[in-house]
Amino acid sequence: MNFYLEVPRLSCALAAVMLLALGLTQKANAQTPTLPSWNDGPAKQAIVSFVKDVTDKSGTKYVEPQDRIATFDQDGTLWVEHPLYTQAMFAFARVHELASQHPEWKQQEPFKAVLTNDRAAMGKFSESDWEVILAATHAGMTTEAFQELVKQRMATAKDPRFHQPYTELVYQPMLEVMEYLRANGFKTYIVTGGGQEFVRVYSQQVYGIPPEQVVGSSILTKYEVQDGKPVLMREPKVFFVDDQTGKPIGINLFIGKRPYAAFGNSTGDQQMLEWTQAGPGARLMMLVLHDDPQREYAYGPAAGLPESKVGTFSQALYDEAEAKGWTVISMKKDWKYIFAFEK
Amino acid sequence: MNFYLEVPRLSCALAAVMLLALGLTQKANAQTPTLPSWNDGPAKQAIVSFVKDVTDKSGTKYVEPQDRIATFDQDGTLWVEHPLYTQAMFAFARVHELASQHPEWKQQEPFKAVLTNDRAAMGKFSESDWEVILAATHAGMTTEAFQELVKQRMATAKDPRFHQPYTELVYQPMLEVMEYLRANGFKTYIVTGGGQEFVRVYSQQVYGIPPEQVVGSSILTKYEVQDGKPVLMREPKVFFVDDQTGKPIGINLFIGKRPYAAFGNSTGDQQMLEWTQAGPGARLMMLVLHDDPQREYAYGPAAGLPESKVGTFSQALYDEAEAKGWTVISMKKDWKYIFAFEK
Repeated sequence: MNFYLEVPRLSCALAAVMLLALGLTQKANAQTPTLPSWNDGPAKQAIVSFVKDVTDKSGTKYVEPQDRIATFDQDGTLWVEHPLYTQAMFAFARVHELASQHPEWKQQEPFKAVLTNDRAAMGKFSESDWEVILAATHAGMTTEAFQELVKQRMATAKDPRFHQPYTELVYQPMLEVMEYLRANGFKTYIVTGGGQEFVRVYSQQVYGIPPEQVVGSSILTKYEVQDGKPVLMREPKVFFVDDQTGKPIGINLFIGKRPYAAFGNSTGDQQMLEWTQAGPGARLMMLVLHDDPQREYAYGPAAGLPESKVGTFSQALYDEAEAKGWTVISMKKDWKYIFAFEK
Repeated sequence: MNFYLEVPRLSCALAAVMLLALGLTQKANAQTPTLPSWNDGPAKQAIVSFVKDVTDKSGTKYVEPQDRIATFDQDGTLWVEHPLYTQAMFAFARVHELASQHPEWKQQEPFKAVLTNDRAAMGKFSESDWEVILAATHAGMTTEAFQELVKQRMATAKDPRFHQPYTELVYQPMLEVMEYLRANGFKTYIVTGGGQEFVRVYSQQVYGIPPEQVVGSSILTKYEVQDGKPVLMREPKVFFVDDQTGKPIGINLFIGKRPYAAFGNSTGDQQMLEWTQAGPGARLMMLVLHDDPQREYAYGPAAGLPESKVGTFSQALYDEAEAKGWTVISMKKDWKYIFAFEK
């Protein structure tokens, strides 16, 4: 067949279909509103203006696609962290599961508090208590065995208030922001104080973020050959804490580029936002404020607690946000829906 | 304008042009040989067969695009490492540059050996000698200042034998392998024992690999606010050694996925290749053998040196390669060209 001669004849019908399809797609896009779960207001406006600035080739704030990096804290920024982080719930469930192999735990803190469901004691766990629990529940197994445990837990456990799997407790408006940024050439990363290997198990499914775009805290792993097969054993020792100053350090270590947009909700995210803002050009720094006790929770400054009680959601953080022009997202005012299951 | 009515008329001319262009592109592709700098032989065949297996949707060895990960050692695998790593040359040049600020170095080892160009002494540097040099030349500055130094060095320094910038001493056949894998849906990573922040400066330009796809050794960084501006200071302390067992650990830490293909040339890459092979399905493990003293160098087993002299290029590694079915690439036999400037 003479390809060159045949093409024009084929082309009429074919192009009609192709271009009609293209036209319909464009129509559909035009009809899909941007960030549909967001109310109009300064928060939504800040996101849309930022994206317009960095994607406008004729503007002074244009950013090359390979430099469009956006980082998101997870707990309290992308999904519910109250009254306890999902990963802490996982750790406590593991303590219960393992208790029959450790009869001594009944008399031994911090395990005793977990096994007797002593909420007051658990609320006061020190860093070293958490390290003991972490070592008992997150280490002493291969990376693959750990991933399997997390996978099983996430498929079966439900949040006691919402009666939904934890993976359904993601904030629909934040999923839309991630999607909107990706549609505009951004690479989206999770930068979490939580366990990197924990979050990677469900990041693709829940957030559309592949494992290699999850930066988090990690424990040491050790390469061993077991029965002729190499494995990575999880050791009971913290390797990297991706929180507070650890967030910009982790971003530089794992990504090697400064974000143009960063989203957080606590003092654990403060330095990530500072680091983002310190770069030239348009930068977007946002803080989620938990001020909706009906649909989610109210804590931090929104709960009117004295400084000593609000811990990582201190008034000082929101003062810094105001002083530096970071945008605070009010869950109550800015979000039409919080969860997809509400709609 | 009624879009739907106008489209079919536009389409004839447009589609003719579009489809002709498509046809020409396909013709061009068909005429471009695969891996043009490779001679036909078992090494080239191993690469082509592997790619065919993992991209054949109807086959049993098909791999989903998001799982197509390929990792490459740098020194001796992607570019010349002999007689000294490029990064060591950078460190020595820095010692010379800084010597006027450190008159004591004239009498102080290991600096004295560098300043007097005592090759015998430099050849015997211990790990702690290297750490002293690393601390003096790679730390005590911000990440940005360091990147600027590397950039300047790479733009100006030339290899004494080839009279070329170091960035021209990349192996053209390996660039073609990376390009070929990427064209087949692979994400290519550098996994180097060298400095992660060093390699990231030129990885995009030289290898087409973005900074976030470079995994390497790193030193501690510290977040500081200097004159109101946050910076990351490079501290004189090793954080992570991405060599030997550190390679699978680094791959799991930074990528979170097991590679399907891995390329190395020394015992520093041994565990990366073992780890790659331990996964199910088709896996490609390759070792570059330096056996071409005319066009590059001959060292390791190819130089016929006794075991004690060949160090990280031990005969044991090549014995393991043979036992496990890894493919050894002979630079002499398998590569038509080694460098692009040869052509």
